[in-house]
Amino acid sequence: MKTVTGIAPVNIAVVKYWGKRDEDLILPINDSLSCTLSTDFMCAKTTIMASPTFPTHRFWLNGKESDFNNERLNNCLTESEYPFHAMQITSKNKTILVRKRANPKCGDLLNWKLHICSENNFPTAAGLASSAAGYAALVSTLSALYNVEGDISAIARRGSGSACRSIYGGFVRWNKGAKPGGEDSIACQIASASHWPEMRVLILVVSDDQKKYSSTSGMKQSVLTSELLKHRAEKIVPGRVDEIIKAIKLKNFEAFAKITMQDSNQFHAICLDTYPPCFYMNDVSRMIIELVHAYNDYQGATKVAYTFDAGPNACLYLLQNDVDEVASLINDIFPSNTNPSEFIRGLPVKLKNSNNLRETLKIQTQTPNKLRYLIHTKIGEGPQILSEASEHLLGENGLPKNS
Amino acid sequence: MKTVTGIAPVNIAVVKYWGKRDEDLILPINDSLSCTLSTDFMCAKTTIMASPTFPTHRFWLNGKESDFNNERLNNCLTESEYPFHAMQITSKNKTILVRKRANPKCGDLLNWKLHICSENNFPTAAGLASSAAGYAALVSTLSALYNVEGDISAIARRGSGSACRSIYGGFVRWNKGAKPGGEDSIACQIASASHWPEMRVLILVVSDDQKKYSSTSGMKQSVLTSELLKHRAEKIVPGRVDEIIKAIKLKNFEAFAKITMQDSNQFHAICLDTYPPCFYMNDVSRMIIELVHAYNDYQGATKVAYTFDAGPNACLYLLQNDVDEVASLINDIFPSNTNPSEFIRGLPVKLKNSNNLRETLKIQTQTPNKLRYLIHTKIGEGPQILSEASEHLLGENGLPKNS
Repeated sequence: MKTVTGIAPVNIAVVKYWGKRDEDLILPINDSLSCTLSTDFMCAKTTIMASPTFPTHRFWLNGKESDFNNERLNNCLTESEYPFHAMQITSKNKTILVRKRANPKCGDLLNWKLHICSENNFPTAAGLASSAAGYAALVSTLSALYNVEGDISAIARRGSGSACRSIYGGFVRWNKGAKPGGEDSIACQIASASHWPEMRVLILVVSDDQKKYSSTSGMKQSVLTSELLKHRAEKIVPGRVDEIIKAIKLKNFEAFAKITMQDSNQFHAICLDTYPPCFYMNDVSRMIIELVHAYNDYQGATKVAYTFDAGPNACLYLLQNDVDEVASLINDIFPSNTNPSEFIRGLPVKLKNSNNLRETLKIQTQTPNKLRYLIHTKIGEGPQILSEASEHLLGENGLPKNS
Repeated sequence: MKTVTGIAPVNIAVVKYWGKRDEDLILPINDSLSCTLSTDFMCAKTTIMASPTFPTHRFWLNGKESDFNNERLNNCLTESEYPFHAMQITSKNKTILVRKRANPKCGDLLNWKLHICSENNFPTAAGLASSAAGYAALVSTLSALYNVEGDISAIARRGSGSACRSIYGGFVRWNKGAKPGGEDSIACQIASASHWPEMRVLILVVSDDQKKYSSTSGMKQSVLTSELLKHRAEKIVPGRVDEIIKAIKLKNFEAFAKITMQDSNQFHAICLDTYPPCFYMNDVSRMIIELVHAYNDYQGATKVAYTFDAGPNACLYLLQNDVDEVASLINDIFPSNTNPSEFIRGLPVKLKNSNNLRETLKIQTQTPNKLRYLIHTKIGEGPQILSEASEHLLGENGLPKNS
């Protein structure tokens, strides 16, 4: 019997991935660039147990057992026709063949069935890149189990495209690659988490009861119908990636922030240019955008950048010195009935009265509970294997400890 | 003394005008195409009185006298340095030289001062292309006063770009033109109002308390900052204009509707790609878009098209046979505390219960008053000169009758 537990981080793109050139291999039409967030406050955790006594593979996600056909989780485990019952992890018929890369020294281990248990330490409902962290945790833990060596980002990519970026810490680029098989469509670290220690992140979880558009189908529809997408991927993104890497290397926050905002807006513009259009931001998202521009105008400098993924939640990048003022302003503009200690989570924030600033910016206090909560976090490291037995999500009996 | 009164229609673009290549001459970066709406329910009306006894030019807009410096109205009348006190109508320093084209037979009339009185018969606050109708009424009435001959759309264009399209009825194309002076940047009729008599329009006036972005400054900012705008203007719009003209000529509603929706979405995508982004649609606009796509999916055919200008109001194009069902559905989804006869205006609508349809489409009834009202109208004729003295907005004394 062998048990391995690993955690992996969330990553938030500043130059967005939107559009595949190969649906099956998950090969993107453009490079993308992201920041990996600290696992202290947001991460996915996976425990994998292999045993000669397990009669079948089993899989638990966030406390619930899921089977092969559970499409809602887009995640299942099945046996393949490959020799040695090689394991496939499928997501909507896309296959990750971790076993291809397994160390042959593993011997019998390769024939043992697996119990896999996976959890996020943040609400998946919030739509916060949970599949990227989840697949990165799964693939890095599986790779530890089978002693897979070398880059594993291409394996994570086959689970969920952006998962490949969660394989590294700090500032990470996903190269679209050129080879038809996707061997060069891998992630690489541009700068480590410690390179820019002042960088902070505020995640604003927005209340939303709108219909959700899946990012997988939205992206596919954009490739089929948006006449602007190809132009973006071919003519605009390459320059932006070069520029933002330069900004990161020079720690030029203004340049970093402007590209981040422009690219978030352009990604949502492409979604709107899709037919039928897909909307991910709502009126609260829009209010946050207006707030950020009003604040930057007032400061006479770009102090805060917003970026939005395929949902209404905002991710704000800013430097450590500006966190208290910006978080206080948000706290004043978006009152909440939630207990303050639950409303602002993560790293400490020193709240102050910002009524005067709010009035200067001419922004009204909103009706309560438009924001669910805020997470204050920073740039962090890539996946880690946790060696303490107490960390395992599965007990000695091979079943989830919390079930 | 000479008095002339004229009315001019609103027009709603189906291929949008967004971006000028010359701010001063108001020359666009792409062709656009619109439908002129019936003046029965929405129009601007202007009375111009010239008299040798008037000591100065005077101007009233919607019941209020406005002077040269009233920027809020963006509309004023002033004397120029030209001989004969040639009249200039300025909008943000852009000058319309109607006098250049005045018939010399007018003689003394050219020296007389003018009283101009202008009104819209629909709320300007609703943001419904009121400046296009207003400038078209002004220019067509002025042209009648001075016996200006030939195309006057290029004069109207200098007041407000889209006003040039309100100079003609039916389906109208605004050619961007190529000459630096803009002489060829004029509107022309593609098909008359009677060409497609089944075509109907529902205008949905959306409640909105968001900050307003002016379309003039939004457009300017897009030209400066959107990396997608040039691609749209050069590579996408020319094909769309050709295709929609073909659809109009063949009365192919499905093709007309699809291009209309795609172009509205692309225009708003460009606004979002602008830095800082400009938002014109809100969550209610988005709900209307989703409703239209759900309805078309249910019908298995494109029965309704939406288009949005620089504001949250929707304009729906549809055929006569579908009006009752679609208006009833909207009436059910967007309940209102307004008296039904004031909530649905314009041409008659036969309301029916559409709860079953609403449930089939899986659309919730919204909280009341998200829509202010609805106007049911159709395609109509261009500006008209009204000869009855009772139509004049100015009395014998040269002052507004309603003031």
